Amino acid sequence: MTALPDIRPGATLGIVGGGQLGRMIALAAANYGLRVHVFAPDADSPAFDVSAERTVAAYDDVEALARFAASVDVVTYEFENIPARAAEALAAKAPLHPNAAALATTQDRLTEKRFINDLGIETAPFRAVDTTEDLARALAEIGRPAVLKTRRFGYDGKGQRMIRAEGEADAAAIDPATILAEFEGAPCILEGFVPFEAEVSVVAARGVDGAFAAYDPCANEHRNHILAVTRVPAPGIAPQTEAAAIGIARRIAEALDYVGVLAVEMFLVPQADGPARVVVNEIAPRVHNSGHWTIEGATTSQFAQHVRAVCGWPLGDSARVGGMAVEMHNLIGGDVDDWAAILGRPGAQLHLYGKGESRPGRKMGHVTQFVQKS
Amino acid sequence: MTALPDIRPGATLGIVGGGQLGRMIALAAANYGLRVHVFAPDADSPAFDVSAERTVAAYDDVEALARFAASVDVVTYEFENIPARAAEALAAKAPLHPNAAALATTQDRLTEKRFINDLGIETAPFRAVDTTEDLARALAEIGRPAVLKTRRFGYDGKGQRMIRAEGEADAAAIDPATILAEFEGAPCILEGFVPFEAEVSVVAARGVDGAFAAYDPCANEHRNHILAVTRVPAPGIAPQTEAAAIGIARRIAEALDYVGVLAVEMFLVPQADGPARVVVNEIAPRVHNSGHWTIEGATTSQFAQHVRAVCGWPLGDSARVGGMAVEMHNLIGGDVDDWAAILGRPGAQLHLYGKGESRPGRKMGHVTQFVQKS
Repeated sequence: MTALPDIRPGATLGIVGGGQLGRMIALAAANYGLRVHVFAPDADSPAFDVSAERTVAAYDDVEALARFAASVDVVTYEFENIPARAAEALAAKAPLHPNAAALATTQDRLTEKRFINDLGIETAPFRAVDTTEDLARALAEIGRPAVLKTRRFGYDGKGQRMIRAEGEADAAAIDPATILAEFEGAPCILEGFVPFEAEVSVVAARGVDGAFAAYDPCANEHRNHILAVTRVPAPGIAPQTEAAAIGIARRIAEALDYVGVLAVEMFLVPQADGPARVVVNEIAPRVHNSGHWTIEGATTSQFAQHVRAVCGWPLGDSARVGGMAVEMHNLIGGDVDDWAAILGRPGAQLHLYGKGESRPGRKMGHVTQFVQKS
Repeated sequence: MTALPDIRPGATLGIVGGGQLGRMIALAAANYGLRVHVFAPDADSPAFDVSAERTVAAYDDVEALARFAASVDVVTYEFENIPARAAEALAAKAPLHPNAAALATTQDRLTEKRFINDLGIETAPFRAVDTTEDLARALAEIGRPAVLKTRRFGYDGKGQRMIRAEGEADAAAIDPATILAEFEGAPCILEGFVPFEAEVSVVAARGVDGAFAAYDPCANEHRNHILAVTRVPAPGIAPQTEAAAIGIARRIAEALDYVGVLAVEMFLVPQADGPARVVVNEIAPRVHNSGHWTIEGATTSQFAQHVRAVCGWPLGDSARVGGMAVEMHNLIGGDVDDWAAILGRPGAQLHLYGKGESRPGRKMGHVTQFVQKS
């Protein structure tokens, strides 16, 4: 008989970050009889409303982070832009899952892409860009169209600028110095274009014991750089491509000695002969919007799975419930005004995040629905 | 186009009672973007850990109840033993669902049974018992075996005494004066024996607009007077019996002008010719242990359905997910020590209530599992 895990029901899970992801982790933790302590800088954080303990402090308040970590049994987080010093302060006082190395690797687009390529996994072509000369050379080498991005702190299309292909409207106006000036000296990366036919993600978990459980790869549709719809299974995906995508997520998780749920966003590039090629876009070292369908659609939700993993508990079954196909639609900004109509739609599962104000581009909730047998 | 409900996401739901039922209502409310304020007398109440606001005060503290109700948009409760004065204090300051009449009718076994019979619905035979003479006469009229119960405040077999049939062991020792002395003057009811083949319950919801939605009737297995296992669909139940059981729940809900989820416990009595006869045992004016399977097993859980109803929102779909059969097993007392093994069991859905100490007979959690296509 194996020993019981150190973290038992009744223990306290610390969550850094108070948005909807932290809130849904907190709800899953409560369902397992855990207490939750949320650390977030904003007193209005949605996750506070469902947590037993709350700390309002800045992410760079190292003393507050240390006190927080000392008061809980294990720490996790809902977003990857935690400063390295904060991660150190947390890890000094409590087990931190996923680990600080996963944070450091994934919060910098350049470090992340080098790490992925070092595993023999393909990414978009890229070059580091710090100066006007770097950008000119990178454009010459990678070609256009391309996207210039800040290396750190970007999300949902923020900190990005498209550079059009030659011959497109405004393409002639492109001047490296002007473009780089928009980024105000932030270290950047230029990423080349990937001619993809679909965007998919693999949401998966790795346990303390190395166990690995992936959800079925899902297809993601973005609007204005923000996830709009997730469909699972991914329509038309070949079994070999599914297996390749899951294998890539597993190699990444193992290389990071990862504990918890992660998401790997990928492009599928059509090939003349054979199944699509898988190109990794980015890694999210956390639960992920493209995994929200698992709340109803999988035997174990990504939030429950994350709690199991970070507590050192056995991973749960990641199979789709009854083998059914599922769709998840985000409610962005004013979409949420339809809440009453959605409540009346047969089979629609409404989730709202308790955010006061709906602003354009703000994720206010989501709707999940079983669609048919796959 | 109909008007939007008065209670909108972002509003505050007040819940009287801080046990596992209040906790699971709070989790469902959070999922709809509602804030939750829990009122309970015990500072260690499990529901506090998942609520935005907490009031620790006694159920007869009328001033605290009034302040609580004035601070929320709608009030509901997790248990039926709320004093009438408390219900009045709540209803004076906020909409109270289910209403005070539902509480008054169901918190007294005598009033409840008379109400049910007045609807033309069968119960066990019963007599009011206040004196030794009442008990002697009731035993003579109803016969033995029978059960003497306090009219109020009983649950899980507390406040009950079996009176054996003549000829059984100890039956000769039965003396009305001795028996009644055990009840210390509490008003009682003697209930006759019902020769049932199965215990079922109908968990159902009624909306502000009179809409009604029932879950499939489920079969309940008790051990030591405490619910142990719920199975849905009820094994072997005839379609006519299912329809009759649901019809009874609907008549009861309508007669009480009920808003929210209620459970009606019933006995099925075999008949020589035709389907089983339905005899009502009792009404619970609240979410119910025999509806816990709906968290995974139904499109809308009983907790989500209750929140929808008390907020004046449209009722959700009560169908079983994928038409699958479901079993729910309670974790009573030391059963909860198996939590780690249950986490490792494929398909088992563990729910723990965050109660500190496991005592014999205490409900610590439950486990739900899909069993097969029905």
